[in-house]
Amino acid sequence: MAGHIERVARASVKEQIVEAAVETLHQKGFNGATVQDITSAAKVPKGSFSNHFDSKEALAVEALDLYWNRTLNSVNILHEEAAPPLDRLRRYFRHLAGVAERQEFRAGCLIGNMATEMSDQSRAVRERLAVLLAAWTRAIESTVREAQAEGSLRRDLEAKTIAAFLLNAWEGAVMRAKVDRDATSLVSFEDVVFITLTT
Amino acid sequence: MAGHIERVARASVKEQIVEAAVETLHQKGFNGATVQDITSAAKVPKGSFSNHFDSKEALAVEALDLYWNRTLNSVNILHEEAAPPLDRLRRYFRHLAGVAERQEFRAGCLIGNMATEMSDQSRAVRERLAVLLAAWTRAIESTVREAQAEGSLRRDLEAKTIAAFLLNAWEGAVMRAKVDRDATSLVSFEDVVFITLTT
Repeated sequence: MAGHIERVARASVKEQIVEAAVETLHQKGFNGATVQDITSAAKVPKGSFSNHFDSKEALAVEALDLYWNRTLNSVNILHEEAAPPLDRLRRYFRHLAGVAERQEFRAGCLIGNMATEMSDQSRAVRERLAVLLAAWTRAIESTVREAQAEGSLRRDLEAKTIAAFLLNAWEGAVMRAKVDRDATSLVSFEDVVFITLTT
Repeated sequence: MAGHIERVARASVKEQIVEAAVETLHQKGFNGATVQDITSAAKVPKGSFSNHFDSKEALAVEALDLYWNRTLNSVNILHEEAAPPLDRLRRYFRHLAGVAERQEFRAGCLIGNMATEMSDQSRAVRERLAVLLAAWTRAIESTVREAQAEGSLRRDLEAKTIAAFLLNAWEGAVMRAKVDRDATSLVSFEDVVFITLTT
């Protein structure tokens, strides 16, 4: 019983650290954030870090997973079958734009931030990013395919190509919004995409 | 005369540091690179850094300017008036794709890397990035406008909107190439852009 309680407590400290890592890495970047910054934000002793993680990279991978699972919740917007697929695509990117706006465009996307900062520094981080971006692309692709099937989206490009292009162009727009601290690039993304890809 | 020689020598050390900063910041990121990393790469004493720069941020701003001036050389591809404007746009992005490929997609774009890592950390870096991205957008915009005027590019979107979209989408594609370590995202960029924006 004591062992059980201990395991629950340990799991909870670990979760607190991963939660805090999402926030701290998103704000400061991987190299800009120390383990101390993260354990302070988690309100746990610095020493508890090494009880749960082999390295800061290993923590970053878990932080990316948690961030993705939250992002994935909004991916559900893409698959609410009551609405036409093109409306769902538009609503999805508007939802992401709203998230960016509530952060005053300062934080950008944790996945995009880690992609540019860490892909050439950490194999573990890069490989997880590749998996997450591939999953994200597939989530968009299925809605693109539906829109193509009903004839609202152009069919002279493969659904997979359009989906990856949309995701990458979105990440680039979020990057630009972070520099300009305004929504111009996100509005342009919507304008260009929904004029040029629809039929 | 001695003063003149000393000024030349000082300018040269400064230039060496900025040159090395472009390479080192591009490889390791702002927070991943120490001043020591940069002065070692420049083969100058560490102490010479503070003779020339008030801060690592100030050096990063100068490194971005040097990177931009080199990138600007390739922006000339956009304005070689012998070729039709649409060909110049295509050739320009193919040139950038070739640069990325020669680095095995590892480094990404220094401007994009600094944008995601430093926009919320350093006002000086963010403001310089905004200026450079605006200038880059204008360079693309003038060729987009020419292509619209001759009727090869769609006119139902403003040249400025298309140009900013192209640049941001390109930066997102370079980010994805850095994660996937292949040219897929850059090829998709060209495919989608030149099919959907042309008339």
